[in-house]
Order: sequence, then C-alpha cells, then structure tokens
Amino acid sequence: MNLDRVLNAESVAIVGASRNPTKRGYQAIKTLLDEKFEGKIYPVNPKETSVLGLKCYPKVSDIPDPVDLALITTPARTIPSILEDCGKKGVKGAVIIAGGFRELGPEGKALEQEMLEKAKEYGIRLIGPNTSGMMNLKTNLNLVGIHDAPKGEIALVSQSGNMALSLITEAMVKSNKGFSYYVGVGNEADIKFHEYLEFFGNDPDTKAILMYVEGMSQGREFLQQAYKTTLEKPIILLKSGRSATGKKSAGSHTGSLAGMSEVAHTAFKRAGIIVVEDPDELFPIAETLSSLPPLRHNSVAILADGGGHATIAADILSDLGVQIPTLHHKTQAKLKEILPFTASVSNPVDVAGGADADPSIFAECARIILKDHEIGGLLIVGLFGGYGIRFAESLTLMEEDAAHQMGRIVKKRKKPIVVHSLYASRNTHPIELLRYYSIPVYDSLDVACKCIGALAERGSYLKEYHAKVNFVIHWREKAKRKGQKIIKQALNEGRRFLLEPEAKSLLGCHGAPVPKDVLVTSAKEAVEAAIEMGGAVALKIVSPDILHKSDAGGVRLNLQGEREIRAAFREIMESARQYRPDADIRGVLVSPMVEAGLEVIIGTKIDDQFGPIIMFGIGGVMVEVLKDVSFRVLPISSTSAKKMMTEIRSAPMLDGFRGLPPADKKALRKILVTCSDIMEAYPEIQEMDLNPVMAYPKGAMIVDARIILKEEARDMVPVETSRAAACQK
Amino acid sequence: MNLDRVLNAESVAIVGASRNPTKRGYQAIKTLLDEKFEGKIYPVNPKETSVLGLKCYPKVSDIPDPVDLALITTPARTIPSILEDCGKKGVKGAVIIAGGFRELGPEGKALEQEMLEKAKEYGIRLIGPNTSGMMNLKTNLNLVGIHDAPKGEIALVSQSGNMALSLITEAMVKSNKGFSYYVGVGNEADIKFHEYLEFFGNDPDTKAILMYVEGMSQGREFLQQAYKTTLEKPIILLKSGRSATGKKSAGSHTGSLAGMSEVAHTAFKRAGIIVVEDPDELFPIAETLSSLPPLRHNSVAILADGGGHATIAADILSDLGVQIPTLHHKTQAKLKEILPFTASVSNPVDVAGGADADPSIFAECARIILKDHEIGGLLIVGLFGGYGIRFAESLTLMEEDAAHQMGRIVKKRKKPIVVHSLYASRNTHPIELLRYYSIPVYDSLDVACKCIGALAERGSYLKEYHAKVNFVIHWREKAKRKGQKIIKQALNEGRRFLLEPEAKSLLGCHGAPVPKDVLVTSAKEAVEAAIEMGGAVALKIVSPDILHKSDAGGVRLNLQGEREIRAAFREIMESARQYRPDADIRGVLVSPMVEAGLEVIIGTKIDDQFGPIIMFGIGGVMVEVLKDVSFRVLPISSTSAKKMMTEIRSAPMLDGFRGLPPADKKALRKILVTCSDIMEAYPEIQEMDLNPVMAYPKGAMIVDARIILKEEARDMVPVETSRAAACQK
Repeated sequence: MNLDRVLNAESVAIVGASRNPTKRGYQAIKTLLDEKFEGKIYPVNPKETSVLGLKCYPKVSDIPDPVDLALITTPARTIPSILEDCGKKGVKGAVIIAGGFRELGPEGKALEQEMLEKAKEYGIRLIGPNTSGMMNLKTNLNLVGIHDAPKGEIALVSQSGNMALSLITEAMVKSNKGFSYYVGVGNEADIKFHEYLEFFGNDPDTKAILMYVEGMSQGREFLQQAYKTTLEKPIILLKSGRSATGKKSAGSHTGSLAGMSEVAHTAFKRAGIIVVEDPDELFPIAETLSSLPPLRHNSVAILADGGGHATIAADILSDLGVQIPTLHHKTQAKLKEILPFTASVSNPVDVAGGADADPSIFAECARIILKDHEIGGLLIVGLFGGYGIRFAESLTLMEEDAAHQMGRIVKKRKKPIVVHSLYASRNTHPIELLRYYSIPVYDSLDVACKCIGALAERGSYLKEYHAKVNFVIHWREKAKRKGQKIIKQALNEGRRFLLEPEAKSLLGCHGAPVPKDVLVTSAKEAVEAAIEMGGAVALKIVSPDILHKSDAGGVRLNLQGEREIRAAFREIMESARQYRPDADIRGVLVSPMVEAGLEVIIGTKIDDQFGPIIMFGIGGVMVEVLKDVSFRVLPISSTSAKKMMTEIRSAPMLDGFRGLPPADKKALRKILVTCSDIMEAYPEIQEMDLNPVMAYPKGAMIVDARIILKEEARDMVPVETSRAAACQK
Repeated sequence: MNLDRVLNAESVAIVGASRNPTKRGYQAIKTLLDEKFEGKIYPVNPKETSVLGLKCYPKVSDIPDPVDLALITTPARTIPSILEDCGKKGVKGAVIIAGGFRELGPEGKALEQEMLEKAKEYGIRLIGPNTSGMMNLKTNLNLVGIHDAPKGEIALVSQSGNMALSLITEAMVKSNKGFSYYVGVGNEADIKFHEYLEFFGNDPDTKAILMYVEGMSQGREFLQQAYKTTLEKPIILLKSGRSATGKKSAGSHTGSLAGMSEVAHTAFKRAGIIVVEDPDELFPIAETLSSLPPLRHNSVAILADGGGHATIAADILSDLGVQIPTLHHKTQAKLKEILPFTASVSNPVDVAGGADADPSIFAECARIILKDHEIGGLLIVGLFGGYGIRFAESLTLMEEDAAHQMGRIVKKRKKPIVVHSLYASRNTHPIELLRYYSIPVYDSLDVACKCIGALAERGSYLKEYHAKVNFVIHWREKAKRKGQKIIKQALNEGRRFLLEPEAKSLLGCHGAPVPKDVLVTSAKEAVEAAIEMGGAVALKIVSPDILHKSDAGGVRLNLQGEREIRAAFREIMESARQYRPDADIRGVLVSPMVEAGLEVIIGTKIDDQFGPIIMFGIGGVMVEVLKDVSFRVLPISSTSAKKMMTEIRSAPMLDGFRGLPPADKKALRKILVTCSDIMEAYPEIQEMDLNPVMAYPKGAMIVDARIILKEEARDMVPVETSRAAACQK
C-alpha cells in the first residue's frame, strides 16, 4: 500500500522553513514541535542554518537521514525543481500547499502537468496542490496548523480546508469523538479520492470516513473502492456544487469538475455511501456511525417526557422512511407498570411527568423497549441530561445512574440509542457519561433524527447487500462479431452515428426486441415488403446525411395499400432530395406499424465523471415536462434494472392505469440489461436513445433507436476476442 | 381588547398555593417572588394561612383587592367550582395547568365543556387547560417557572411546553435576543390561536411572533387574523403532526385536531406567515426577522475567505430560490482594488486570504457590496468572528472594528447582514458586537442560509402584497334564486346530492360553461334532442337512486343516428331497472359529445380546520398517479386562481405539449372563481367535483359535475337576500 509512507510518514522535511512567525514555513515546524510529532523534522531553506532550534538544510537532498514526506510551502513555480531534488533523495510523498495551478486556467494547468510528470518520474505521491495540508493524529504529524484537534476514529477527507476546520471545531465543542487523519485533497492532481478511501478502509484505527467533495476526477474508481470499503466501514459524504452558482464557486476554488451529474446521488447510495446534504449533519452522522451498531431492522421507538419534541421527531423520522411501530402489547404492559396512568406507551412513549421525581426511569423504559425484538433502536428526546438544571440539582445523580445503565443496555442489546437533549450544549455530567458510552447527544432534534435515519440506512444496506452491484466495466467482453462489423462500417464511412437499420440490427443481435424492418430502394420493393408484413406500415428515409428524418420530410406513418405506399415512397425520396440534393440515400426503411402501448424511453450516455450510465423514464409528459427519470451507472444487473423502474414517480403507470393493461416489466428489464451489455461491449458508443419503446402486457418493442459514436471511436482498436462470438440471430 | 387584563394582569391569585416545595402551587409563588413580579400576588388555599411570607386566602372571593388573573394548579375536576368562585370575584382570566380534559377522551371532553360554560357565564377568559402556563416578561409575570428566560421582542405562542423550553434555552445560549411573552396554548379550549395573534399584533413591545402548533380548532379565523398581523410583524410558525405517528402523538398530547390538511401550508404562506419545518430554524428566523429589514429585492451576495462554505451556501440559497447574481462590474472593480489578485469578486466573493493580516477587510467588502443597488443583502460565511482564535489574537481587535463598521452599514443601507461563523458558539467579543448591532451569527451554515431565505420571503411577500387575499366568507351573498331552488328541491326530496342536470344547471346559472344537455323521458325525445344538437351524443341515466351511473350500465357514449340512440336509450333503462328495480328514474340526459381537449379536474370541499377549499389538477395520471394538485382556501380571486394553476408540477402541460394546443387558462380561471362563488353562495354544499373539465385553446367545458350537500343542510335556513338575484340565464 504505497500511501503508507506518505500518510504515516516517520520523517518530514519542511521546504520553505522560516524564522518569520507569520510564514507557513515557521508555523508548520512550530506546530509539529508543539504537538509533539513522534517522528523527525528537517527544516529546509538555503538561507537559514537553524529554525526553532532545529538544524536547517539547504536542500532536501542535503538531509543525511531518510525522509518520507516533504511539506512544500513555497510558491507554485518552484515546485517542479523541488520535487526533482526530493526525488533524488528518495522522498515518498509531498504535500503541496501552494495554489496557482489548474484552478487559475491553462497556464496553471500546464504547471500542474509539469509537476505531476516530475512526481511520476521519481515515484513521489502528491497531496494537493492547493491544499490546507494533512494530519495524522496518531503520530501527531500535524501539517495543517489546527491545534487541539480531538483524536479519534474518524478519517476526514475534505476538498475544503474551511470545511475541515468547521468539522474539527464542531467535534471539539459538541462531542467526545475525534479524528484519526485529516487529508486536504486540494486539486486532487495526483492522489485521488479513491486512493485515500482504500488507505482509510484498511487503517485499523479508522472506524468511519467523512468526506467533503466539490468534484472528483475519477468517479467510477471512487465507486468501485467505496463499494468495497462501505462493507467494512461507513462512508459519510457531502457533495456540494449542485447549483449553478455552487458549481462556479467550486470551480474557482479547486478547479474541479464540479457539479456532479444527477446520477451521482443514486450511484453513491448504491455503493453504500451515506449521502448528506446539510453540513450540520455531517459530523454527527459520522460520530454516530463510527460508534454505534446500525439498526438491524428499520423500526425505532421514541421516548419523551411530554409532547412537542416527540411529535416533531415522529414527523422527521417518517419523512426519512424510518418505521415507528406501535409497541408490542407485552412491552406496553411492562411500561404501564412503571409509568403514571397518563403516560402514552404505544410509541412515541411519553413518560408524562413520570421522570419528575426520578429520571432514571428513562433507563428502565429503555431496557423494556430495547428488549422488544421488533424494535431496532431508541431515540430519546427532550430534557434528559438537564433534569438537574430544569428541576432540582439532586436529579442529576439519578440521570447519571440512568446514563450508566443505558451504556450497559446498548452494549448488551447491540442496539443504538441516540439522545436529543435541549441541554446538550451544557455538557452536564450525565451528558458526558452518555457520550462516554458512545451514546451521542445532540441539541438539534433534526440532527438526532437524521442520525437515526443514517443508522437505519446503513442497517438496511448491509442487510440487503448481495454483492450484485458492480462498477467495473469489462470492455468488449460481450461484443458480437455482427455488432463490431456494424460499428466498423459506420466508422469506415466516416460516420459518428449508426443508421436506423444499423442501430436496430445491433440491438437485435444482442437479443433486444426490434421490429422486422426491411430496407428497400424502390417503391415496388416497399410494396412487396409491406405485403409480406401485413397491416399498415411506416416508411422512413435512410441516409447518412439526414439525421433528423422528420425535418427532411422523410417519415410517413400508417400507410396501407399499394397506392398509398407507392405515393409515400415517391414523396419521401423527393423531399429528401429537396432537403439535401447531395444526400447519399441508402433507401427507405419499411417498418410494420406497431400497436400502441405504454411508451417508455431508455437512454445511455458517457458521463464525465462516471463513464457509461443509463436512464429510464415513461415517454411524453413524464419525461419531457416532469423530468421524471431514474439513472444508474453501468453495468446493471437485472435486479438493479427492476429497482430503477420503481424509482420514477410515475412508476404506478407501469402497473396499468385507467383501464390500460400493465406493462411487461420483465421485458423492459431485459432491454435495460441489454443496453448495459451493449455499452460495455462497444466502447465506441457515446450514446444510445431508444425512444419510444412500446411496452405491452406481454413483451415490448423498440420502435426507434439512435446510436451515436464517440469522437475518438475511429482511433479505438477493436479487440476481436474469442468471446466476441458470432451473432446467434 | 379583552385579553389585556389577562396577559398584562396586575394582580394574580395562585389557587392551590402550597408550602411544599415540590408542588406547583409553591413553585409558582417562589418564581413570582424570585423574578420580582411587578404586581400583586395572592396565594389561595383553605388549608394555609400564609405561603412564602404572603397571606393566604381560603377562596379567591375572600381576597379584598381586585384580582385580574388566577393561576389554578389544582386537578381537573376542581376547576368548574373554582371558576365559579373566581367569577363571583370578577376575575378576568385563568390559567388552567391541569391536564385530564379533551385529550383523555369523552369524559374529559365533557369536563372541558362544563369548565368552558362556567367561564363563559362569568366572562372569564381561559389559557389552557393542559398548559405549561404563561409569562409576561415585561412585568415579570412568570407563571411557568422557567428561570432566566431572556427578555426581548419576540412573542412565543406554543402548544408544547417542551418546545417553549427548547426555544428559550436556545435563545439563552445562542443569542442576545429574547421574549416579550410566552403563552402555552394547551388544549385551546377558550382563547384561540388567533386571539393571541391579535393581542401580540397590537402589542408595541412585540416585533415578531413565534408559533409552535400541533393543531388548531379555528383555522379560518387564524388565517384572517394572521393576514392582518403579518403586514405589521412577521409570524414564524412550525406545524407538527404531518405524519401518521406525529398526528397520533399530537392527539394524545393536546387532544387537538392535528395533522393539518395539505391546504394548510399554502394557506399559511398566503397569509404572509413564514412556515418553518426544521425546529432548528425556528428561533433563528424569528430572531432575524424581529431585528433586520427584509430583503427589498431577492438578490444576495455571499462573502467568504476560501471555498467550501461559500459553495455550500450557494447550493442552499439556490434551493431556497434566493438569487445570487454576478456583481456589477463596478462593484467587482472596487473589490479588486482592495483584495489579492487570487480573490474571486463575482459572487460568491472570496477574499482568498486577504483577511489574514487584517479581517476588517470584511467590513470594507460589505460596504462596497451593499452599496450596489442590485444587491439586497449579504451573507458572510466561514471564520469571521474567530480570526483571533484561528490565527493571532491581535486580529480580534480588527474584527471588532469590522463589527462596529458593519453595524453602521446595516443601519445606513437598511440592508441585512447575516453571519455564519464556525466560532459562533465561542461568543467572542466581535461576535457579541455583531449581535449587539442585531447582526445574527450562527454556527450552522444551513440556519444562516434559511434566515436569508426568510428575509427574502418576507421581502417579496410585502412587495407583492395587494390586499387581494381574503379569508372571509360572505355566505349567500352571491346566491341566485335558481340555485337556491335547485338545492331546496333536492333537500325537499331528502337527497344529499344534486342530480347531474341539477348540478350543471347550478353551475350554468353562475356562468360556468356547461353543455346544453337535455333531459328526456322517451327514446323519441332522445332522438329529437340529438338531432337538435347535431353530431354524436352521450346518454346518461338520471335517478336520485343511482349515484354511480356507470356501475348501473347507465352511461352510453358517442352515439349517432336514430337506431343507435333508440337502442342505447332502451338498454340504459333496462340496465337501470335491473340494477335497482325500485329506482326513481327521472329520465335520460342527452349530452352532445364534447371535443377532446386537455382534461383538468376541479374540486371543492369543506376542510375540517379551514372551511371551504378548492383543488386544481390535470386529469388522468397527473392527479391519480402523481397526486399533482394545488389547493386554496376559498374565496379566491382571479389572480389567486391563476397562481394556483402554476403551482402544479405539470403546469407546463397547460401551455401546450407535444403539438397539442395550449389550454385557455383564462377560461379555467373563470371556472375556479365561479366554483369559489358557488361555495360561498350556498353553505349547503359539502363538495363539488368537476371531472373532467375539457380545456380547449379557446374556452373550456364542464363535462361532468357532482355536487354533494352537507348532512346538516336540511336544517339551514336559506336567507333570501335581495342580493340573491334571479338567474340571468
């Protein structure tokens, strides 16, 4: 694991060391000394002989002992030559603080490239540039200069130093948990998000990974790694740059390809990542997931003293899809035994003043509730932790007793308790005790509920995990000879798209349902084809020079009888020649008119950050007006295809509607999976658009298909693997 | 204003006074003494002669001096007799602490009724029952027992004592603002939400009203009052009980009619109320709105030092619909003059380390930005307020200077500044100064953004206010003789619904577009009617005994020619007789087949809490699958009708879609307003269902209409006012 010597460096050179306290090169050394870094520190500056009592070296290569890591605090333009020197010394990694690279435009981008090449040459791994630094809190390797950052088991990976500072400050003030590492990813020029993920995934001292992301350059690799990591540890991620202004802001900040596409949210969740949108929830959810067991089943009890908070919590948890079932009658009976008659015992449980004389009744309730097999976890809301403040000081002792008991209950039952207390910020001793037992306490009811929601989400992800999700593309493996021939033909003709009959033929050769179209070159042939088909037909012009057939008057529908077909054929040819006199006309496609069914749309494309993705929606208003579509990163399994069809709001339409018959969802699933196969089989394809696909009670039919090839497709060398079997059809 | 002597009471009797420190009757007196209540305190208990050094009276009526208010701490069953005694004494108001009324079921409800009648008899106004009490913080009339509640200009009206305690605790810890009054509404048995609203609306010391509501009994009166009040002062409201479990929880808590209908959210907003969903935002938004001017135009600048927070803030504000425009080039130029070359000056503005040496640059930036006429307000995010902590202590002084300057800028420009600081909870002196100048500071970025959102919402509400919204129903004013006759006829026949021709006739007589249907009693008449109409017709059975015509085989569509019509008539009559042999068949309705158009649905009903409301949606999938509808409390103006049509997600369909022509929105608006008129004109109507209404490029047509009457309609006395003019049609 080649990041080990970087993130666990035992010796560090500070390039740009300084005696001036306002300089980063002074502060860095001061911090390492103050924080008692366990390794060696080597100041580097040709103009100094010693800094803060440490011998200063002119160059890194002048240091007599081995150096794992260099912190480079000098300006952007100096970096390549410093890296050269570091390389010669055998330095394993460098933290580049300077900005002034990709985020400043083409010139900066070139400098970034130069720096990268130098690093590659010498095998130096880079953190940054444009980063606030990194910290290993286990060895006190603090290259950031944030003091008193609490130590703990959360690894923090952030594309903003400010956000890191926010989270560390929050942890300091509101929690007893802390961090194992912090990495400021910066421009992500060399080490990518997924590499950090892999490292922290393997780090035994890290229990959860907290990420703030503005944009990422290798989305698919990230998903692959996250998918592995989340099986072991939770990843909690906030992705900003959704809005236009947010994108602009992120771009000027890290030069990142910000504004992750609509597919990101679903893809992250499929990889088991807990996606957070409100920064207030980021640290608390990481804290909760790092220290409490996830919900084994999605059902929670709420325990309160009086109304208000319980009602609001019920609303918030319901919005999150967390179940709040009525407690088992035996559980209710046991609660009734210890609570006043005015108490509610169904769920939410309201002790109704039953804690006024002795708040340790909360622990008794918790014991009874968590013994109930149907209840996965407990949310306590309201005043607990502050009875001593609100009522009488003596109650504090009973709260302490309750806290000890609850600690034991959580351990015994392996079920989580999360506490909302309006006294959380007072850090009373009962609250400190709860936190000692890893029972998190928040003054925000919303945050406490979101933590329960995250425990539920993680629990059901792990439960439903079947190792079927797959973010690895096996290019060409499923390619067929016929398909390769079709694409080659198009490329040989200098085309970047397939003709309609080619597209359908490609789909058909992978088993997708396409109409039995016939390409004809004369009116006579058209009539013969129509007679063969029986019923009404459609005629469509086929020409590499006419992409938009309707605009060219090249489409005629619902034709019947010899006269009508002959006339239509003539008209189409005339219109096409008028539209583009020099058009290379290959003929006219005769298609049987398909029966009306439910129109669905299936599309695929290459996403900037994730590569091949697929889209599904119901045609017409649903897609065009309501943008009601679902996405998946490819490849997809049949299960995933099934699930993505349920994710659109208009999904009930697939089950039949207003007397219309239901759509054959199996047939649609098969088409989705076939599209996935095709995208994987032919890396030349940029985009497919199956619109419409008619879904029937039994079966489905691709009525029209458009396939666009990549600009660079001509330069791709199709590997004729043995697996590229001849089309069976 | 009859609540004055209650909420501003100058003398208070404590009924149930006690010498036992664990009793409420002791604590209440102790609190009043500790907090130095400015008025008189009279303990009342037949068993005591003095409590806490004050003379104790056996009964309220034994007190020699006048008593404004009684705090009654004794159990529920004792209340009526105590009120009797209070009444004789001339007491103006009572705070009833005890629970055990409506929230416990029928028995409790009866007791509540008895209590109410007693109170009415003597003109005593009641707060509660089942309340945590009330506080007047101006006179230290503290009947709750929460100590150290900060004084200020926010009136707090809450249906949960816990929520009040939460908000007061939050104010204490996180703000320098506070409260003028607190009222625990409890079961809202006597004094209603809207009466408190009126009182606080008129209170010169209250600048904003903060409400936590679980359910309310008189929604319409509340809207009417809120609509008046919000013109003067902001109302910030959180309504819980959205979810099924939340409803249950609220019901067991205050016995309130919880779970306000879907119409509530829109109605509250139309009344100018700021509706909040996350309790974390409740106090901050009240604080912000009570002390800062609203945004005069919806455009905000974000000011930061570095990325991260600015990017997230841009995302959140964009979600809230707050504009973050690029700054004017002159403003940008001025910013460039004072900031480093790496700074972003378009918006978000990133000072990019420009504050490292002197954070007072934030004030200079604020001055330049807020001078820009196109910018309505400023959000500062990140570290400001903590440069002294993060970097060097000396920077604190410059931050203080900046805080003073910003205070002056807000005052001069009358534009708000809101600050997010990750050091907000540290209460540094610069942060205290900002708060002194009423510039709120939050450690939650989300909350800071939501406060800006609320300033924008209030600003645009006040700007767009045209005094056209109206929550007052003028029953019968718009009634027409013909309409009254139709309803009377149905009621006389013992029906609770109108027959289809009656419903259409009622709609038609108010000017709504209905087809020229003809009721016939023979096949011959049916044919004659069809010939008269020309084109195809529909036949539908008309019988008070057959509500679901289709189920009875009573509907035939698209009939043409004498033979077809005659046959259909016979078949309908036969089916109907088979369906219900004893059915009273009034005949068959012949309707011209209407042209296909865009199908919309318009419905009205009587909402439990708001009275008459109206619904609009596009027929078919949009309503039935996607529940894509908008609501309004009636009556509505034409402007409001226009707006409600834009509120559905599928609104673009009204503008034409996939080659379909646009719908005549003016015609639809007219139908909506007519439905409003009809609901107002005939209080007998429970519900109308116009489904479908066909919308055409020009005009619209109500194809089917169902009108249901109220159960109690027979007992209503129609007032034949002179305004109920004869139908002109």
